[in-house]
Amino acid sequence: MTKVSDLDTPAVTIDLDIVEANIRRIQDRLDGFGIANRPHIKTHKLPQMAKLQMDAGAVGITCQKLGEAEVFADAGVADDILLTFNILGVPKTDRLCALIKRLKRMAVVLDNETVARGLSEAGMRNGVDIRFLIECDTGFGRNGVQSPQAALDLAQTVMKMPRMQFEGLMTFPIKLPDTRQYLERSLQLFGGAGIPVPVVSGGGTPAMTLAGEFPMLTEYRAGTYIYNDVMQVTAGAATWDDCAMKVRVTVVSRPTDNRIILDAGSKVFTYEQYYAKGYGRIVEYPEAAISGFSEEHGVCDFSQSKRKPEVGDVLNVIPNHCCVVTNMMDEVYGVRRGEVETVFPVAARGKVR
Amino acid sequence: MTKVSDLDTPAVTIDLDIVEANIRRIQDRLDGFGIANRPHIKTHKLPQMAKLQMDAGAVGITCQKLGEAEVFADAGVADDILLTFNILGVPKTDRLCALIKRLKRMAVVLDNETVARGLSEAGMRNGVDIRFLIECDTGFGRNGVQSPQAALDLAQTVMKMPRMQFEGLMTFPIKLPDTRQYLERSLQLFGGAGIPVPVVSGGGTPAMTLAGEFPMLTEYRAGTYIYNDVMQVTAGAATWDDCAMKVRVTVVSRPTDNRIILDAGSKVFTYEQYYAKGYGRIVEYPEAAISGFSEEHGVCDFSQSKRKPEVGDVLNVIPNHCCVVTNMMDEVYGVRRGEVETVFPVAARGKVR
Repeated sequence: MTKVSDLDTPAVTIDLDIVEANIRRIQDRLDGFGIANRPHIKTHKLPQMAKLQMDAGAVGITCQKLGEAEVFADAGVADDILLTFNILGVPKTDRLCALIKRLKRMAVVLDNETVARGLSEAGMRNGVDIRFLIECDTGFGRNGVQSPQAALDLAQTVMKMPRMQFEGLMTFPIKLPDTRQYLERSLQLFGGAGIPVPVVSGGGTPAMTLAGEFPMLTEYRAGTYIYNDVMQVTAGAATWDDCAMKVRVTVVSRPTDNRIILDAGSKVFTYEQYYAKGYGRIVEYPEAAISGFSEEHGVCDFSQSKRKPEVGDVLNVIPNHCCVVTNMMDEVYGVRRGEVETVFPVAARGKVR
Repeated sequence: MTKVSDLDTPAVTIDLDIVEANIRRIQDRLDGFGIANRPHIKTHKLPQMAKLQMDAGAVGITCQKLGEAEVFADAGVADDILLTFNILGVPKTDRLCALIKRLKRMAVVLDNETVARGLSEAGMRNGVDIRFLIECDTGFGRNGVQSPQAALDLAQTVMKMPRMQFEGLMTFPIKLPDTRQYLERSLQLFGGAGIPVPVVSGGGTPAMTLAGEFPMLTEYRAGTYIYNDVMQVTAGAATWDDCAMKVRVTVVSRPTDNRIILDAGSKVFTYEQYYAKGYGRIVEYPEAAISGFSEEHGVCDFSQSKRKPEVGDVLNVIPNHCCVVTNMMDEVYGVRRGEVETVFPVAARGKVR
């Protein structure tokens, strides 16, 4: 069996003991809230990880792209998929219908009539019913209808379209008090109109600690919790010990006393920063900062670290955002207690369509 | 033949007329300076593009990763490769030696003794001589020895190691007056020590306009010029008409009058910003700004644009940095006058080792 210490760098390792503990802990938490778990697979992009999540009690999975949903449907690990993206155009709506025919349940979100009309036409063309959720912008400022009344209006309009079946409301992320007020008011309006709302879907790993404050949620979509990262720890949603993804890198240069160059840059870590100060946490030198990237270089500032590594030393870095690192890699290494247990080809990497 | 307008989105298109003009223009410019052209393939990661560059007069190519060099050597498009990265460890140094055996010429840079010793040992182990350039930090603050004297000292030390052949100096990018002073002084010192410096290698697309101010340069490494992007236009190194890469995206939502959501985010464009104000230029709406990304969403602010697109409209976006977009895509589309001429699988995508 290959030892982790023998892996050439840069290499992305996933600690399987930590993954299993993260899956168990979050499933237990959502079970405690009485909210169904529908993990977002964007974090790992691996059918094998989705299977662990399903085996632990998830009701289905969340995908953001049709190409991801196809990979996971092909792998046969989940027969219940929610696609949380407006799907437009004949090629994509036909692909969606093909998935609907194959799966026990496949639903999709929408936030406007143009998307709804395209889906309805695809449903007629392909002879399938399309289950839809209305995406609600409850404060994040991305997609979504802008008010509870707009959610009701759109639902009522789309429900009149052939082949369209209203299934509920979806939002990301959940936030107090905005999301709760928005969802409460929406449920009042739908109730007043006599429209049942079987699904109310919330999401976001950092916000999951708040899920108990949202009694109307029927399901939760979180992704990052399976690996965790600097963003989650900074947000108080995980500890360093909960971080399963580490990038092994080699010190390739030390041009000055305090400047250390790593053999990985934005082509591995990406430039995502979020709440973090630098571009990742060096496990062996937590006082040091990754201060910048080129595509293949990580530039570190060791002025705040008394100890300094030498050229040739291998370090482990917890990335700022694990989901985007997954997408950079053709394969990641599943490791346990110093040994490589599995090499995972990242099956749903780069599925942009 | 597929029309560009039939490509599903997001899709990265490369205008081949513009590519050919860019290759010709920059080759002519370097010919005018009397400096050899050694284009950096990181921008396109495509053997087909390297062949166009070689056919136009390039002397060889530049790679940043061993895995890239292997792809281009396998494709047989260049028999002269410079690898501009410190190569460390037995697996990588053995791979380097295998390339040296296959190619007419293969050189590598180094900036410290640890790397040099590993290369020397690999040369002995594999029975090959290793041509090396000293990487000089002439002001960029990344890799490189910190002074002309340090360059000479390191060269003299490494030249005594078995199998190591000194070939010259390398820096990135060139900058006035620092780089010129550094290189002039280095050449004085090497001359005084009786050490010939056959190669002096400079680089960087934006800085190429300055190359005529550096008479000591024997070769130039530029990558981005083949496609160009917002960064190059902002730096004055190209015009919008010189931008060959455009990302076709679809408007999937317009949640408010001025907020437009595109079906591509950081998983296509990355978060690189450089000198740009936003995250890319929308060709059809230059007054609008791409104000933020999620992995799959592009969030646009159209408050400064009187005209607004509708849901379903397809737009073309010139990315901030074309090289990093190439690395996100499994394939890009070579297009000419509205038709798709070639689908290029991105052969050297994701080569992190």
